[in-house]
Amino acid sequence: MGMTIAEKIIAAAAGVESVKPGDIHTVELDRLMSNDGTTHLTVDMYNNKLKNPHIADTGKLVFIVDHNVPSDCPKTAASQKKMRDFAKANHIDFWEGKGVCHQIMMENYVRPGELIFGADSHTCSYGALGAFGTGVGCTDFLYGMVTGTSWVMVPETVKFNLVGKLPEGVYARDLILTIIGEVGANGCNYQVMEFTGEGAKTLTISDRIALCNMAVEAGAKTGIFEVDDVAMEYLKEHGREPKAVYHSDPDAHYVREYTFDLSKVEPVVAKPDFVDNLAPAKDVRGIKIDEAFLGSCNNGRIEDLRVGAQVIKGKKVSEKVRFLVVPASQTIYRQALEEGLIDIFMDAGAIVMNPNCSVCWGSCQGVIGENEVLISTGTRNFKGRAGHPSSKVYLGSAATVTASAIAGEIALASDV
Amino acid sequence: MGMTIAEKIIAAAAGVESVKPGDIHTVELDRLMSNDGTTHLTVDMYNNKLKNPHIADTGKLVFIVDHNVPSDCPKTAASQKKMRDFAKANHIDFWEGKGVCHQIMMENYVRPGELIFGADSHTCSYGALGAFGTGVGCTDFLYGMVTGTSWVMVPETVKFNLVGKLPEGVYARDLILTIIGEVGANGCNYQVMEFTGEGAKTLTISDRIALCNMAVEAGAKTGIFEVDDVAMEYLKEHGREPKAVYHSDPDAHYVREYTFDLSKVEPVVAKPDFVDNLAPAKDVRGIKIDEAFLGSCNNGRIEDLRVGAQVIKGKKVSEKVRFLVVPASQTIYRQALEEGLIDIFMDAGAIVMNPNCSVCWGSCQGVIGENEVLISTGTRNFKGRAGHPSSKVYLGSAATVTASAIAGEIALASDV
Repeated sequence: MGMTIAEKIIAAAAGVESVKPGDIHTVELDRLMSNDGTTHLTVDMYNNKLKNPHIADTGKLVFIVDHNVPSDCPKTAASQKKMRDFAKANHIDFWEGKGVCHQIMMENYVRPGELIFGADSHTCSYGALGAFGTGVGCTDFLYGMVTGTSWVMVPETVKFNLVGKLPEGVYARDLILTIIGEVGANGCNYQVMEFTGEGAKTLTISDRIALCNMAVEAGAKTGIFEVDDVAMEYLKEHGREPKAVYHSDPDAHYVREYTFDLSKVEPVVAKPDFVDNLAPAKDVRGIKIDEAFLGSCNNGRIEDLRVGAQVIKGKKVSEKVRFLVVPASQTIYRQALEEGLIDIFMDAGAIVMNPNCSVCWGSCQGVIGENEVLISTGTRNFKGRAGHPSSKVYLGSAATVTASAIAGEIALASDV
Repeated sequence: MGMTIAEKIIAAAAGVESVKPGDIHTVELDRLMSNDGTTHLTVDMYNNKLKNPHIADTGKLVFIVDHNVPSDCPKTAASQKKMRDFAKANHIDFWEGKGVCHQIMMENYVRPGELIFGADSHTCSYGALGAFGTGVGCTDFLYGMVTGTSWVMVPETVKFNLVGKLPEGVYARDLILTIIGEVGANGCNYQVMEFTGEGAKTLTISDRIALCNMAVEAGAKTGIFEVDDVAMEYLKEHGREPKAVYHSDPDAHYVREYTFDLSKVEPVVAKPDFVDNLAPAKDVRGIKIDEAFLGSCNNGRIEDLRVGAQVIKGKKVSEKVRFLVVPASQTIYRQALEEGLIDIFMDAGAIVMNPNCSVCWGSCQGVIGENEVLISTGTRNFKGRAGHPSSKVYLGSAATVTASAIAGEIALASDV
């Protein structure tokens, strides 16, 4: 029996010829990423709970401060200091204020064929470059850090055949919300979402990140794309080579298959309080908003900022709305500066923030109050995700979010 | 007996021929500014404690959200929403995310000869344009809002004769820290600091704001400059006319006089935990820092960003330091964009933030932890001002702060 890309990565990491879904294997990890969400807890366990604390390979570790940047309170400052000091003492790659962890990983580390653990649920993003990235808790992270290994139960793979091409004004963000709307928020629990087909080849790396990044929102262990010329070009631009390039075998087993015609996708919105509470954006037009957010590891890349800037150029943010624009990394911010996009957002009256997770994670920037409404390019719209339990979050594309910021209510780019 | 500028403003506001220190007068207020530090409390009192709630003149009110921007938690969001809704319902000028309140007031409202109350201690900044600005608590603010008036006990005036010119590499920031270091943190309690003499004329409006802004740190009721061509030029550029231009009479009474020779001023630092704990910057060289902050209503103007950018151009922020750069207003931010200063700071690895009070007020951005050390262009270095009670704040100029960010320890611009 043939194997899928994900299965091949696990087999290689386990040092075995082949694996099948349900098998449990001990795997060698290629890289481990942890951010300020939980690293201080990992460090505490490392220092206080281990008989013989050591790190298998510090060269595989990456620590990234991205959740509350800059620190919002003394407690956060203390957690980040613990992380910073530990990284320095142990010669661990350390990033602070440079961007959202997944974006930094994509720009600087991820290689096709790698098996990567991240102490953050959206580690599944790395499949955009044909790597197997998955989120783990800080105890599993600690185990990986100390031993260099972990166990993995081989997930089943679900095939998503993408055909056609996204229409003008429709984005990968609309596509992944549409897909999750159809399969459901638990539709791919502990499975791999493999995006393939001719339609997949039409998507940029930024698009592929947007798709893989939200695989976990359908419950998936990860999302993954085959490495093609587009991926190789991205790697070349970033000065990296693949570890290994895998393709799913023609006789690989898929637990289910879906086909999505990209040309039929339209601008959509995930309504509160579930990611699969899908509606065509045109059907929720006119819902009043208090805040709009363009950013996050899902949709804060230069491509997304270009889309937003194109929509808002020469227009103004509604007086009723705070519009937060948060490039996902410093590299993106600087590119946006160079292209004049920051100017466009500032001219329009947006609040341009330093690269970080911002209100997507609902902690320290742009938190919304009682009954307030946010439209966001972020990853989640759970109850209270962006602030007060009674507040509401709609998820939409950069175009829809920006148009809504201008209109003061949910709107399409064609409305403003 | 002649009168000082401050006395003349109060006399005019009281509708009397002359006033003298110690007199108590009911004065007509020209303008009232309130920010998100306390406006929600004012609104609560207005709604719940008054028999006949009304506003004397909504045209005189300005509400500015600048302390926690964007909102850091649901409680802040609720306070700001209360402020926002009240402003809209009552047609009050409302600014959000556009900059630190005093900078917005200087750019858009303050006129020579006006008597302005602000629910913020650094309202004394407005003396840079020959206005009498002073900070009040929210109960006094409410009284002023409802009646359009307040009472003022006429303060004594202290004369600061400024002679000479600041040397290259020494700034108004160094001058005001030097002055406060000499007169003491309680040196001008409930008095007016009048800055005058040929040296005063050499100072830009930005310099004058830096001086007047910190008058309250010497305990003063306000700081004030005579209106001259430099002030008139600033007003013209900003499309405003004076209300009235006053000069102190030759026989005006001053309770004390000081003379400062600007040419003798050197780069200085206020050490923890008091603003008057002064030291030459060269004497505290080498003290390790964790964070550096360039911003605030005291030193976040385009002139200060230019100084910082000149120091850091082509260099890098120390890996040991977070360097926060926070333009004091959106206007300044856009000017800095245009001049390429934001690029320079980003290239160096600084964290460029949206215009707001930031860590100067120690609440939601760049808060420091246990035993951490900040060097700051902000207004205050009280115990715990920037975070944990054990943390320390040094105050210095934009040049010294930026040089320290590069060195990872307190340093002069000439050291880096």
